[in-house]
Amino acid sequence: MGSTGRTRKRHGGRAGNALRRGGDVISQMPWRIPVNLDAPTEPLTQDGVLAIHDTAMRILEELGMQFLNPEAVDILRKAGCTIEGETVRMGRDFVMEMVGKAPEQFTITPRNPEREITLGGGHILFGNVSSPPNYWDLSLGRKVPGTREMCANLLRLTQYFNCIHFAGGYPVEPVDVHASVRHLDVLFDKLTLTDKVPHAYSLGRERVEDVMEMVRIAGGLTHEEFEAKPRMYTNINSTSPLKHDFPMLDGWMRCARRGQGCVVTPFTLAGAMAPVTMAGAVAQSLAEGLSAIALAQYINPGVPCVIGTFTSNVDMKSGAPAFGTPEYMRATQMTGQMARFYGLPLRSSGSCAANVPDGQAMWETSNSLWAAVQSGTNMVYHAAGWLEGGLIASPEKFIMDCEILQQIQRYMEPEVCATSPSDLAFDAIAEVGHDGHFFGVQHTQDRYTTAFYQPFLSDWKNFEAWESAGAAWTPERANQVYHSILDDFEPPPMDIAVREELEAFVTRRRAEGGAPTDY
Amino acid sequence: MGSTGRTRKRHGGRAGNALRRGGDVISQMPWRIPVNLDAPTEPLTQDGVLAIHDTAMRILEELGMQFLNPEAVDILRKAGCTIEGETVRMGRDFVMEMVGKAPEQFTITPRNPEREITLGGGHILFGNVSSPPNYWDLSLGRKVPGTREMCANLLRLTQYFNCIHFAGGYPVEPVDVHASVRHLDVLFDKLTLTDKVPHAYSLGRERVEDVMEMVRIAGGLTHEEFEAKPRMYTNINSTSPLKHDFPMLDGWMRCARRGQGCVVTPFTLAGAMAPVTMAGAVAQSLAEGLSAIALAQYINPGVPCVIGTFTSNVDMKSGAPAFGTPEYMRATQMTGQMARFYGLPLRSSGSCAANVPDGQAMWETSNSLWAAVQSGTNMVYHAAGWLEGGLIASPEKFIMDCEILQQIQRYMEPEVCATSPSDLAFDAIAEVGHDGHFFGVQHTQDRYTTAFYQPFLSDWKNFEAWESAGAAWTPERANQVYHSILDDFEPPPMDIAVREELEAFVTRRRAEGGAPTDY
Repeated sequence: MGSTGRTRKRHGGRAGNALRRGGDVISQMPWRIPVNLDAPTEPLTQDGVLAIHDTAMRILEELGMQFLNPEAVDILRKAGCTIEGETVRMGRDFVMEMVGKAPEQFTITPRNPEREITLGGGHILFGNVSSPPNYWDLSLGRKVPGTREMCANLLRLTQYFNCIHFAGGYPVEPVDVHASVRHLDVLFDKLTLTDKVPHAYSLGRERVEDVMEMVRIAGGLTHEEFEAKPRMYTNINSTSPLKHDFPMLDGWMRCARRGQGCVVTPFTLAGAMAPVTMAGAVAQSLAEGLSAIALAQYINPGVPCVIGTFTSNVDMKSGAPAFGTPEYMRATQMTGQMARFYGLPLRSSGSCAANVPDGQAMWETSNSLWAAVQSGTNMVYHAAGWLEGGLIASPEKFIMDCEILQQIQRYMEPEVCATSPSDLAFDAIAEVGHDGHFFGVQHTQDRYTTAFYQPFLSDWKNFEAWESAGAAWTPERANQVYHSILDDFEPPPMDIAVREELEAFVTRRRAEGGAPTDY
Repeated sequence: MGSTGRTRKRHGGRAGNALRRGGDVISQMPWRIPVNLDAPTEPLTQDGVLAIHDTAMRILEELGMQFLNPEAVDILRKAGCTIEGETVRMGRDFVMEMVGKAPEQFTITPRNPEREITLGGGHILFGNVSSPPNYWDLSLGRKVPGTREMCANLLRLTQYFNCIHFAGGYPVEPVDVHASVRHLDVLFDKLTLTDKVPHAYSLGRERVEDVMEMVRIAGGLTHEEFEAKPRMYTNINSTSPLKHDFPMLDGWMRCARRGQGCVVTPFTLAGAMAPVTMAGAVAQSLAEGLSAIALAQYINPGVPCVIGTFTSNVDMKSGAPAFGTPEYMRATQMTGQMARFYGLPLRSSGSCAANVPDGQAMWETSNSLWAAVQSGTNMVYHAAGWLEGGLIASPEKFIMDCEILQQIQRYMEPEVCATSPSDLAFDAIAEVGHDGHFFGVQHTQDRYTTAFYQPFLSDWKNFEAWESAGAAWTPERANQVYHSILDDFEPPPMDIAVREELEAFVTRRRAEGGAPTDY
């Protein structure tokens, strides 16, 4: 290698960008919206589907959900639900009527319209890790609380990798920024460092409204244009078992009213906040999720909703959550069957319990990502960068995960399994005969540059060549890639007037004190 | 922990054995023959299946296979094939008639009848890594040629882990034993250290005959009993493109005559020994495999045969083989569809190109193992211990792979997705209500010890507890498990008279010079 000519390329908004650095090239797959070609894996019989549905409905009818938000309770009373304090019981006819109003497929359009994503149908989309309070990287070698700089660097990875389709929550919580203004600073960073679909936390009125306003400004949109179609989304978690809390419901209703994407993901750890049996945990998760979707559809019929699953198990010896387990995989697949039964797009996650980006991290993450594929998941949260059950964000893990995500994207390309006469290659086989090889024949020459997936992180050298090159294990190589990406990163273009309007908004809202932190 | 009472348990022949050592317990899943519950992933349309079949048949009809073994050529001439020197052309009617005689399902019974395995149908079975010339472990920290001791230690792992169902080829080549007698020493070790289904290399007359005789002796069988049903198996690889070599065919025909398991696995690297297009590589692989199966069925109609796939791609920049890639996964799935079309059991592999047991090793291996599941593979070769594209065997990798294999076994247990009223758990959900948790309720208490997969290697502690316990990354933990297993290993029981007869056989054959090494 040892090239002296260093080429700088503009990254970000372009498909098929490549990072060149000191003669080394990190080439990645172009931006695309992959379509899942596989028939989903369906462990439930049709009777099983109906039994889980019936249980979810009985939970809503007989036990009810607690909605810890008076406004939500009032709305559901008006809708004809049975109210007893904060407990709302809803009949299955109402739930199914409301759920039936949700679209099976919809788009979200961020400030760069070329980054529009389609949710639902056969599409499978990946987002960055969201919300870990802590950060670990190999250079640091220890776990530390997240900072704004770490968060911004992970946002740069989110933008850089074409296999990351949407920008989830904060890729690490910047705890060096006061909670009252954290959403302003991180959203400013997110909207300037990325041009992908953004997320808003439903943590109180001010945060959601500020984020919606910032997304509107960043897109150069009028209020009418903003509300005309989804430009962003929120994700809420129920407080299992069987509760939705105040700020989550508040943000949920605000997003629903303004027609933005509404994702609800109960975090039902079987044996802790849900039954120890997976069918029971899935039924409870569905009841919790569907009750929020019913509320959103009553408020704004047809608003795009996604049903999420985060049903896993705990280690029954310690109570510690486990991820990417066999039970997690089956729960994800079962929820996929149920999502299709309800006609709703599905969200699941890439996840692991491992504390460092080692072998365990990769088998747990692979299990969870293949479960996403097998379940027909449309929106894969935490698809890159997650460690320690979501308590740590790691750039090395982010980059390792992106290598897997790219392989899943390649796996979904129909040409891999094409069977045209040219693919069947009888003439090439005849040409090579019994004694040759295929390197030199025209059939190979015509195709070899694009025939196979090209990894950017996997090292396919033999042992001796790998050893001579420094014997770097995967996380070390990922660390090098991380620094290369940061060194050459250029943010996507943004109109200077838009940037100034965003800055002015942040300055004003900071001066006003941001959001209250006493909820 | 710090328990002082050290309990020794007898391992090997028992289901559900547990290794106790210094108060630490490595508990593993019991011996069982897992049944794959999932509908296979089928990327080919029915037209695609027929197109690949037609191409495979055209290869055999128009181009022919070279059989570099005069006896095989004579037999195929007698069968009505068109012979031109060593090139044998066979019509599709003959091929399909012969393939139709092969059973869709069969058993192999080793010296311990409780270790009998069923091949075909929905069964999915795992075997150890086979044939790497080199060895790597973490204590050693470098790649070295294999020895008999390393080989024996990997055979101990093969025996120890209940998720390993059959003993493949040499888990590492013991290059410190002369090639002429290597098969005698390793088979002696294999037959005394394990009681699982053994394998014979088809490398010349003496090796195959010696191994069949040793398997017969180890089982305490008469010659008639040995031939009455499969007691072992061989695996041959074609010399792609379109050739079968002399010693492989010799061993193949000997095993076929004596009714032992016959597995044929072309090693078709797309772009090198096969077309750069996966459909073409699969078609060529099938032609090569089916031609050997046709020969076996003509010799001994109904002899159990397995069609293997090892279709992967090369790195087109370096020519290095790649494993566990998206193309590898799809080729495995396509071959699975074809195996069902032909009514043959399927063999595939666990594989990776990584040089050390790191993240890359685990995503590549996970990809290959999930492809085995998705393709309906019945026999997974190299399922534990493979590194560097099969050039290195590693005990840490073996143990890490077994953690994945156990998870696949657990994934296949029907109870994970059961939907009886007790699984749906409505009463438990009602009991916990809106404010409790599920740890304490009777529904959980009745089930928690067996509700979830219990890993023996995954560490689910949080970061701080993991750090306090030594901050061991996965390969370090695997290394500890490896030494614990070796320290406590006890071989499965063998009648002393049988052992003496085996010893006498080895002594005699060593004195006779073993097998010639000039082929």
